[in-house]
Amino acid sequence: MKAYPIGKRSIRLEKDESVAVIDQRLLPFKYKELRLRSCADCAAAIRDMAVRGAPLIGAAAAFGLFLAAKRASDAGWKDYLEAKAAELRATRPTAVNLSWALRRVLRACALAAETEDRASRFTSVRAAIADAARAEAIAIADEDAESCRMIGVHGLPLIEEIARRKGGTVNVLTHCNAGALACVDWGTATSPIYAAHMSGIPVHVWVDETRPRNQGASLTAWELGERGVRHTLVCDNAGGHLMQHGMVDLVITGADRVCASGDAANKIGTYLKALAARDNGIAFYVALPSSTFDFGIDDGLAEIPIEERDEDEVRYAKGLSGRRLKSVLICPKSTRASNYGFDVTPARLIDGLITERGICKAERSDIARLFPDLANKTDI
Amino acid sequence: MKAYPIGKRSIRLEKDESVAVIDQRLLPFKYKELRLRSCADCAAAIRDMAVRGAPLIGAAAAFGLFLAAKRASDAGWKDYLEAKAAELRATRPTAVNLSWALRRVLRACALAAETEDRASRFTSVRAAIADAARAEAIAIADEDAESCRMIGVHGLPLIEEIARRKGGTVNVLTHCNAGALACVDWGTATSPIYAAHMSGIPVHVWVDETRPRNQGASLTAWELGERGVRHTLVCDNAGGHLMQHGMVDLVITGADRVCASGDAANKIGTYLKALAARDNGIAFYVALPSSTFDFGIDDGLAEIPIEERDEDEVRYAKGLSGRRLKSVLICPKSTRASNYGFDVTPARLIDGLITERGICKAERSDIARLFPDLANKTDI
Repeated sequence: MKAYPIGKRSIRLEKDESVAVIDQRLLPFKYKELRLRSCADCAAAIRDMAVRGAPLIGAAAAFGLFLAAKRASDAGWKDYLEAKAAELRATRPTAVNLSWALRRVLRACALAAETEDRASRFTSVRAAIADAARAEAIAIADEDAESCRMIGVHGLPLIEEIARRKGGTVNVLTHCNAGALACVDWGTATSPIYAAHMSGIPVHVWVDETRPRNQGASLTAWELGERGVRHTLVCDNAGGHLMQHGMVDLVITGADRVCASGDAANKIGTYLKALAARDNGIAFYVALPSSTFDFGIDDGLAEIPIEERDEDEVRYAKGLSGRRLKSVLICPKSTRASNYGFDVTPARLIDGLITERGICKAERSDIARLFPDLANKTDI
Repeated sequence: MKAYPIGKRSIRLEKDESVAVIDQRLLPFKYKELRLRSCADCAAAIRDMAVRGAPLIGAAAAFGLFLAAKRASDAGWKDYLEAKAAELRATRPTAVNLSWALRRVLRACALAAETEDRASRFTSVRAAIADAARAEAIAIADEDAESCRMIGVHGLPLIEEIARRKGGTVNVLTHCNAGALACVDWGTATSPIYAAHMSGIPVHVWVDETRPRNQGASLTAWELGERGVRHTLVCDNAGGHLMQHGMVDLVITGADRVCASGDAANKIGTYLKALAARDNGIAFYVALPSSTFDFGIDDGLAEIPIEERDEDEVRYAKGLSGRRLKSVLICPKSTRASNYGFDVTPARLIDGLITERGICKAERSDIARLFPDLANKTDI
């Protein structure tokens, strides 16, 4: 297997204007990149979870809309792009970065078309909007990488403080993959961990397996391993026991959508770890770029749509048998399963949100203090 | 595959004095019985988890010691049986039923030997202790079946009350397999469910997969299916979300050891479900026969030994591929895992203990009220 291209982004616009992404369904057993050459390719990659993770989904959707813009007509571009955006938006319901990125690209296109009407800098409206969409998609990816780097900068002191206080290794528990693979680079939950590791702080990560798709076992374990960060895989059931016995110093997870109130949707099972952290007096932080905020809603439990996925993800487990990827049935053939993809951790269980602008409390006023420009817009 | 022999016990002494058990490692894909013909066979079956579940482990150990008694010598029987008991005791550390059952059989043997010294009813001391051990092992199994039946009788009103209050289907969540397979018959957590089902109350069970060994997916789903009880398999991560959204009315689990204080050790992950139940105002009950009490200890977290098992149970998932049972690797080859088998749910999170004598609070005085004969003995 190819060595992990550390520092290589999870999504890149290539010279031929195809979009290169890692096929995350094959990890950790095979490193293979896909080239997405159309909006439909991008939609399929998101829908089939070749790319996943809220920030990466946002970037992939932005590039998808750029690829659509290149095929738009001068007259009908607006309806066309809106239809394409709707297609992309429908691929996954919970991560808000998806609709956020699409809104940004659509707006950039609208502005470019308007400007082009007045100034005629391009050969066609299509050329103008494609240029704007390209620039906006690249900006979204660049900003995400920088936001994630800054999450590391702001999160690092949390780990430093624990290292100072207790001495020895700092044990961080994380759920799912909110790593470099879930973002453009660095990751959200992993960014403070990588920052600590690079600073020479001894850090060890408890990696939740994260059934049913095992993003912890397959993706987080892999990227931590490739970057030389010590880690141990555990079942999703284990975190409570580890916390009861002083084996966890800090919990950091990512998020797919965080409300104005601080309620955070993340991979199913996150809520259970937040409860255990609270019960054992362990700090529980959610790391997110501001693109993951949804200031339009308040009550996470009532308002965040929770994706329901195919029951076979629960009925089967996927892994390597010999040299082949296989799915094995783990229950009676006739047993039916239910598969909610996310749960919502109420703000009251979250000790803080680690963002690119710093750490804030998971409460309306403190979030608004850090993001007045976003929190006070009704349409963001 | 053979139909499930409903009403057939999970462990039986056959006419040829072999011990018949189901090889639970092959379920739900294959129903195969093992014949245990020696104490070593019984120890291996417990150690390798062909038989598992605290009450069943107790019964299997009792029969194992009976098989050992048949091979004892008149002079050295005591040391011999104590050594065999130590071997059996060492197979699994957490379930207290194991040492409880061994103590009972050893005592019965001691009493028989003493009586035989005076009365000479048998042809040899060995014949006397073998007869006593046989009777005691059978009594342990019979009492367990009856205790589990009574757990159903006492637990049924909990489900009836919910059915009356809300109307429609009562949704019970359970973790691991505390079913007929884990006991001699009926099960502990499942007994009130079976009682409700047989009473015509519409009941539906959320079955936690229960990684790493998937006893929920493979055993609980199977036995509920065979008995016609509606159920849905979910990942261990899902319970919190289900509870947040009113989809769970009651949680019932089994236990491997319950302290005098009411702290309960059970399959890893139980504690997380207890936290979620409490956070959502849902009743959380632990069902157990009195053989699962350990009145010798008070602080479950500090004192109950927690078994650590092979990391490969976490690194691999087992299931059916085509017609063959396969284990698939779910993480990078180099990733290490940790595998604690149990966690301890503090008494404060348990709404009640369902026992063969009725329901009591998970607190010292109420447990002692129900079991004064056991709670007040220093050596039980």
